[in-house]
Amino acid sequence: MYLPSLFILPLLFISSQAGVLDFCVADLSLPNGPAGYSCKTPAKVTENDFVYHGLATAGNTTNIIKAAVTPAFDAQFPGVNGLGVSIARVDLAAGGVIPFHTHPGASEILVVIQGTIYAGFISSFDNVVYLKTLNKGDVMVFPQGLLHFQVNSGKIPAIGFVSFGSSNPGLQITDFAFFKNDLPTEVLADTTFLDIEQIKKLKGVLGGTN
Amino acid sequence: MYLPSLFILPLLFISSQAGVLDFCVADLSLPNGPAGYSCKTPAKVTENDFVYHGLATAGNTTNIIKAAVTPAFDAQFPGVNGLGVSIARVDLAAGGVIPFHTHPGASEILVVIQGTIYAGFISSFDNVVYLKTLNKGDVMVFPQGLLHFQVNSGKIPAIGFVSFGSSNPGLQITDFAFFKNDLPTEVLADTTFLDIEQIKKLKGVLGGTN
Amino acid sequence: MYLPSLFILPLLFISSQAGVLDFCVADLSLPNGPAGYSCKTPAKVTENDFVYHGLATAGNTTNIIKAAVTPAFDAQFPGVNGLGVSIARVDLAAGGVIPFHTHPGASEILVVIQGTIYAGFISSFDNVVYLKTLNKGDVMVFPQGLLHFQVNSGKIPAIGFVSFGSSNPGLQITDFAFFKNDLPTEVLADTTFLDIEQIKKLKGVLGGTN
Amino acid sequence: MYLPSLFILPLLFISSQAGVLDFCVADLSLPNGPAGYSCKTPAKVTENDFVYHGLATAGNTTNIIKAAVTPAFDAQFPGVNGLGVSIARVDLAAGGVIPFHTHPGASEILVVIQGTIYAGFISSFDNVVYLKTLNKGDVMVFPQGLLHFQVNSGKIPAIGFVSFGSSNPGLQITDFAFFKNDLPTEVLADTTFLDIEQIKKLKGVLGGTN
Amino acid sequence: MYLPSLFILPLLFISSQAGVLDFCVADLSLPNGPAGYSCKTPAKVTENDFVYHGLATAGNTTNIIKAAVTPAFDAQFPGVNGLGVSIARVDLAAGGVIPFHTHPGASEILVVIQGTIYAGFISSFDNVVYLKTLNKGDVMVFPQGLLHFQVNSGKIPAIGFVSFGSSNPGLQITDFAFFKNDLPTEVLADTTFLDIEQIKKLKGVLGGTN
Amino acid sequence: MYLPSLFILPLLFISSQAGVLDFCVADLSLPNGPAGYSCKTPAKVTENDFVYHGLATAGNTTNIIKAAVTPAFDAQFPGVNGLGVSIARVDLAAGGVIPFHTHPGASEILVVIQGTIYAGFISSFDNVVYLKTLNKGDVMVFPQGLLHFQVNSGKIPAIGFVSFGSSNPGLQITDFAFFKNDLPTEVLADTTFLDIEQIKKLKGVLGGTN
Repeated sequence: MYLPSLFILPLLFISSQAGVLDFCVADLSLPNGPAGYSCKTPAKVTENDFVYHGLATAGNTTNIIKAAVTPAFDAQFPGVNGLGVSIARVDLAAGGVIPFHTHPGASEILVVIQGTIYAGFISSFDNVVYLKTLNKGDVMVFPQGLLHFQVNSGKIPAIGFVSFGSSNPGLQITDFAFFKNDLPTEVLADTTFLDIEQIKKLKGVLGGTN
Repeated sequence: MYLPSLFILPLLFISSQAGVLDFCVADLSLPNGPAGYSCKTPAKVTENDFVYHGLATAGNTTNIIKAAVTPAFDAQFPGVNGLGVSIARVDLAAGGVIPFHTHPGASEILVVIQGTIYAGFISSFDNVVYLKTLNKGDVMVFPQGLLHFQVNSGKIPAIGFVSFGSSNPGLQITDFAFFKNDLPTEVLADTTFLDIEQIKKLKGVLGGTN
Repeated sequence: MYLPSLFILPLLFISSQAGVLDFCVADLSLPNGPAGYSCKTPAKVTENDFVYHGLATAGNTTNIIKAAVTPAFDAQFPGVNGLGVSIARVDLAAGGVIPFHTHPGASEILVVIQGTIYAGFISSFDNVVYLKTLNKGDVMVFPQGLLHFQVNSGKIPAIGFVSFGSSNPGLQITDFAFFKNDLPTEVLADTTFLDIEQIKKLKGVLGGTN
Repeated sequence: MYLPSLFILPLLFISSQAGVLDFCVADLSLPNGPAGYSCKTPAKVTENDFVYHGLATAGNTTNIIKAAVTPAFDAQFPGVNGLGVSIARVDLAAGGVIPFHTHPGASEILVVIQGTIYAGFISSFDNVVYLKTLNKGDVMVFPQGLLHFQVNSGKIPAIGFVSFGSSNPGLQITDFAFFKNDLPTEVLADTTFLDIEQIKKLKGVLGGTN
Repeated sequence: MYLPSLFILPLLFISSQAGVLDFCVADLSLPNGPAGYSCKTPAKVTENDFVYHGLATAGNTTNIIKAAVTPAFDAQFPGVNGLGVSIARVDLAAGGVIPFHTHPGASEILVVIQGTIYAGFISSFDNVVYLKTLNKGDVMVFPQGLLHFQVNSGKIPAIGFVSFGSSNPGLQITDFAFFKNDLPTEVLADTTFLDIEQIKKLKGVLGGTN
Repeated sequence: MYLPSLFILPLLFISSQAGVLDFCVADLSLPNGPAGYSCKTPAKVTENDFVYHGLATAGNTTNIIKAAVTPAFDAQFPGVNGLGVSIARVDLAAGGVIPFHTHPGASEILVVIQGTIYAGFISSFDNVVYLKTLNKGDVMVFPQGLLHFQVNSGKIPAIGFVSFGSSNPGLQITDFAFFKNDLPTEVLADTTFLDIEQIKKLKGVLGGTN
């Protein structure tokens, strides 16, 4: 458009309040609700709210599973609150294992950045197992809520990023859910078919009681 | 409104095609999609499509868990397709157990109709256990995707109905997922911390191989 | 997995803030929003928040409709807040009637626990009526927002549970909406085609004015 | 960016299949599903699929309600399929009435284009009535699923446009649902509190039987 | 239903707390969340909360684009908060232009009330352009997030109403996004292919810096 | 649980049809709908459907923007259909640029795998610019539908992965939308404020006509 007169009236044709919900950076000090955290006042939002540095360094894999998952969910990375997406870093030392777990609220997509990862999930339909060895650059998707695992099947440390279609996908590690709390051993035996000794052994490892 | 003349023109003021999606009774012979099954032609839908008799009789509890779950999900009860709700009947003989399981796609609400049910679920946050004994008429809610169980803690058969906020909530029984397929024993041992012998024993019980 | 060394480092590989939204028990004292009530502080949540005893006793049917609906929606049962599911108990004395009503926000599934219930709903498409007599154990689904009713068509009291794919399905009883408020009689006559005398009669019964 | 060389390689850096679901113009000849109609092949979509002329002429108000609603929902205007929005035109001759009705699947926003419209809706919470006279240019919102009406309260024909947050909001006119089908008079009397004579009179007007 | 005794017990058969979320009029003084603003206390809600007068008068088109968009989104019209619908008025003087823009959060439907509007949108699939001249009463739909424009192609002022399937659709005008802020000219040149002079010219017109 | 008898009846307590919608691998040969593609027959689904190798190799950056985006959306990676998540690989040679673009249907999260990326997005609220230089391992989120860009601000090739909260986020590159089709130059000038010569120059570069 030719703009013969460049000094016209201000372009105040849109109310300046419109669009305040382009984003909703979480203010963790306010109450949250079913859809996520309350929003930080837009005037206080800066570019730093949309960036997270916590995945730049490897997680500490000096532990029993030789693995670490470092999440950038809404509780760690308030900028994703309400945006329906989040990410986490997976570090697997040689022999490392992310044990069977589920994400109650979202599907997951994994991309392998380094090393070799052997991963799988189990359908709830006929309990079919889908297993695959993934190399650098390979991508695998894990449908919402289904049990899945990832292990380092190579000799060097493996690294992956896992993304989710929710800013708070949740994470329930089956072993932790079973053995890392005070769920009574007898109840657990009745509801998992596991032997009492097996349960006691794993409660011992993971810090469970009862 | 007074209607002095009752013989006026037909009230054709709304296009008769409007509203064809009041409901979408599943036609299981057509392709399904991410939101559910394709819809049966409205002209063929009858009142019978909205009623299901399959929960009127007790499930067969003469089995290893002395329990039965009878679903009325979209695959069994096509009338619920796309309506965001479904139901199932739970029968628990004395000593009966619905082992730990999840529903990947919906929260569950249980109402006890007969007997006493001891139920619990495990939060993914710090693995906190929520346990409760429920009597006739009591209601308990189990949040989406979290591990939960129900057992008959009384002496008579217990009956409950469980409802879901989805027409296809899914059901993944942890033991079946682990032990009722060909997931290699070694992989399972690595990803669950369970002992090889424990795994082999349960694969034997549940029909798993490898 | 063999666990040769059981005394390794703590398994702190997941940030403990992850997953705070496994559930969102309503705190009715805080502001609510379009997606439901604000969440109670997780630290104060107990197993009692997930259980509701209010449906264990029959509703009082000594009233004009010889019926009672007892809801366990989010306002009564804060544990369901945000979980997309709720339930209510329906008691129908002999001759009892749940008059025509809608749930603006969810579909409903009814299971009959005792007695015989005659139920129906009306499609918005060509105003087709779907009617059915339901016996103990039968299930019927009522699509979202459509007018429906339930009456006791047997000789003994009937009991049912109705579940919803929302923690706040809403309930609008047509007669209450029309006759139990101060909506002017003339306006009502114009917009319902009902006779003035009919309206006045029902306003009298239900406590409406104007 | 300076573009010193304008004759470089083709910019084929995005797979051409991406984005086929920018829109999903309904193909009414294919099966539909819970989320709407199947999509017309993108190659056959033209600009005409996104435009609808059917609201340009007034609806015929020579009828018992002196009013007409002309919808542009997905069944009439296939371009809106899946886009979560639709519109309809409301014509009200002098004395015209859109009787009480609901939209099961969406909230409605009304803008008055000509004349004066008296409109109202009834909350399901305590049956509160919200009534308002609207002049040209006024806007009123009617929350999802709640009973509402619109009448011409002026002396000239009134025109409005009503928009919905769904491509298929549905429309259930209470009088049509009650009196324009074969729902037995006795059932209707029991479930609406209306007198038999009133029901018979309105069935006569609207063409109902039984 | 015959009501022989009109003086029976009160009809307290529904808990009066049910249904408080029929609507959620925005209280702009409370924190907002990902799903919208917090709700005004129901007791303070009146009919005025559901009506907006701000679209009754023409927007001021004495500006560079000879056009005005007046929104009735949740920030201006709190009654639509959470209801998934909103509206805006478009005024186009002769020669008026609503420049290319997107709504990040919703599809749009336009109805022309006066004059002639030439409108178009661009698919992200192969960048196909859909262009159409719309006369009074014509309707056009613009799929979510796609670039579109509207211009007055007639000789008299044109008026339209645009509705959205969200109470906060957002509005991003490409030129404002590029030229009405402090985005550095060099960055903009690199990421838009535009010439430096062109950028500087438009920054000058629109008030941008850097 | 002790399992004294291991040879009991089969555990047929769950209908085998339950859970067929754990996933919905796209069958691109069937019609699609608003929620995505139709599902491949579950019996034909294998582990290969959930894995994608197409991101393992760098995209070809020998082009005008010295950059490549390689998507793994539902059209390329049918396993993500309906799962609400997808991913793409971004390759930026030295000097490479992903020009301003939007994703109409989802927010994006970027993780830098190699090199340094300078990225930014523009809010629709007051056109505020959020700019940031990202190093290896840094994460940035781009809210749904907002204009954003990424450029290589280092000296070595940069690599990133971008994930989305949708299996079909869409991608609209502003320059392609404006200059890579037959949108008439005059219309474009009127609706973008750009000079005719600028438009013609970029149409020439990008292959646009008219």
